[in-house]
Amino acid sequence: MQTTFEIPTRGPGLTEFTPQVSRWLAGQGDGVLTLMVRHTSASLLIQENADPEVQDDLQAYFHRLVPPSDDPSMAYLRHTYEGPDDMPAHIKAAMLPVSLSIPVAAGVMRLGTWQGIYLFEHRRAPHNRQVAAHFA
Amino acid sequence: MQTTFEIPTRGPGLTEFTPQVSRWLAGQGDGVLTLMVRHTSASLLIQENADPEVQDDLQAYFHRLVPPSDDPSMAYLRHTYEGPDDMPAHIKAAMLPVSLSIPVAAGVMRLGTWQGIYLFEHRRAPHNRQVAAHFA
Amino acid sequence: MQTTFEIPTRGPGLTEFTPQVSRWLAGQGDGVLTLMVRHTSASLLIQENADPEVQDDLQAYFHRLVPPSDDPSMAYLRHTYEGPDDMPAHIKAAMLPVSLSIPVAAGVMRLGTWQGIYLFEHRRAPHNRQVAAHFA
Repeated sequence: MQTTFEIPTRGPGLTEFTPQVSRWLAGQGDGVLTLMVRHTSASLLIQENADPEVQDDLQAYFHRLVPPSDDPSMAYLRHTYEGPDDMPAHIKAAMLPVSLSIPVAAGVMRLGTWQGIYLFEHRRAPHNRQVAAHFA
Repeated sequence: MQTTFEIPTRGPGLTEFTPQVSRWLAGQGDGVLTLMVRHTSASLLIQENADPEVQDDLQAYFHRLVPPSDDPSMAYLRHTYEGPDDMPAHIKAAMLPVSLSIPVAAGVMRLGTWQGIYLFEHRRAPHNRQVAAHFA
Repeated sequence: MQTTFEIPTRGPGLTEFTPQVSRWLAGQGDGVLTLMVRHTSASLLIQENADPEVQDDLQAYFHRLVPPSDDPSMAYLRHTYEGPDDMPAHIKAAMLPVSLSIPVAAGVMRLGTWQGIYLFEHRRAPHNRQVAAHFA
């Protein structure tokens, strides 16, 4: 079966959507869940869901690793017409997962205790993001 | 069903092969496409297919993030006997996707409007690369 | 069919577990193997299995790219209460693969000649890691 998860974002950062996925799988059997983000400026992460500071630190780290294109260190970038957060968003979308494959047993994802599923927004403006999902 | 896509490269950079994949899936139903690059010095990307400058910028960024091993900042590397582009290629192949999972509906990949599938060559010399594919 | 691979680690670095996976798949037909690490401070890699120096260099590179949180360059990190290797482990687990999808033909993974499957431990202490596996 297939669906599309719609994830509204509020600008840069992580948005958890584990509960939506769990509800969709409830009552299913064994199989694999496939998730794919339908954008080139956002990513999917499986990350720790206990301490919200982890999410802030992840965003801070990747912002420093891939600074906006108006930072002097990024002066060589050419694809800048959508703004200084445009090309860095593509770079982060290359570096971080675009698709995830998650084994499911008796309708429950086999995530570890501390694992949640996140949409990582890389653009400055809020967006409505789509994640294509397949289970079989 | 399974196949192998053969992708000739011309040295470092991205080569799109979305059309070959689309043709192979044409006429199929719903399912998941799995792609896996059979090399440790090349990667698979889903990236923006509109402005070719995005591809140049991606290559330029990762070349700076992981410089050749004859760069003084990389003097600690030991696996260098195949040349200065050898170990950086392995590092990029660890950092960027080796496999992709793409939901397919009625024989069409559920990619977003601006998404294309690319082979990212990390070595300086041209290579013939293989991508193992499975659809079910 | 599903299983869980148990991988003991000896602190930071790569542990190959290709033979365990190959044995589990022996005698099966065509399909896709899905692997997912059930932790947010370890990763899965497909990497070169010939020269052990590649594994040392990979660990050295990512240790420099994401230094411990007591390094002055990482002073902005907030999630530090489990020690200086805590948040860097989460960052590496975001950057490197959490799941892998590998086409299988006649019970044999379609890996390239030089490819092996590794668990990449990011914490300083030894751990027992779990990898959820599905084949169909």
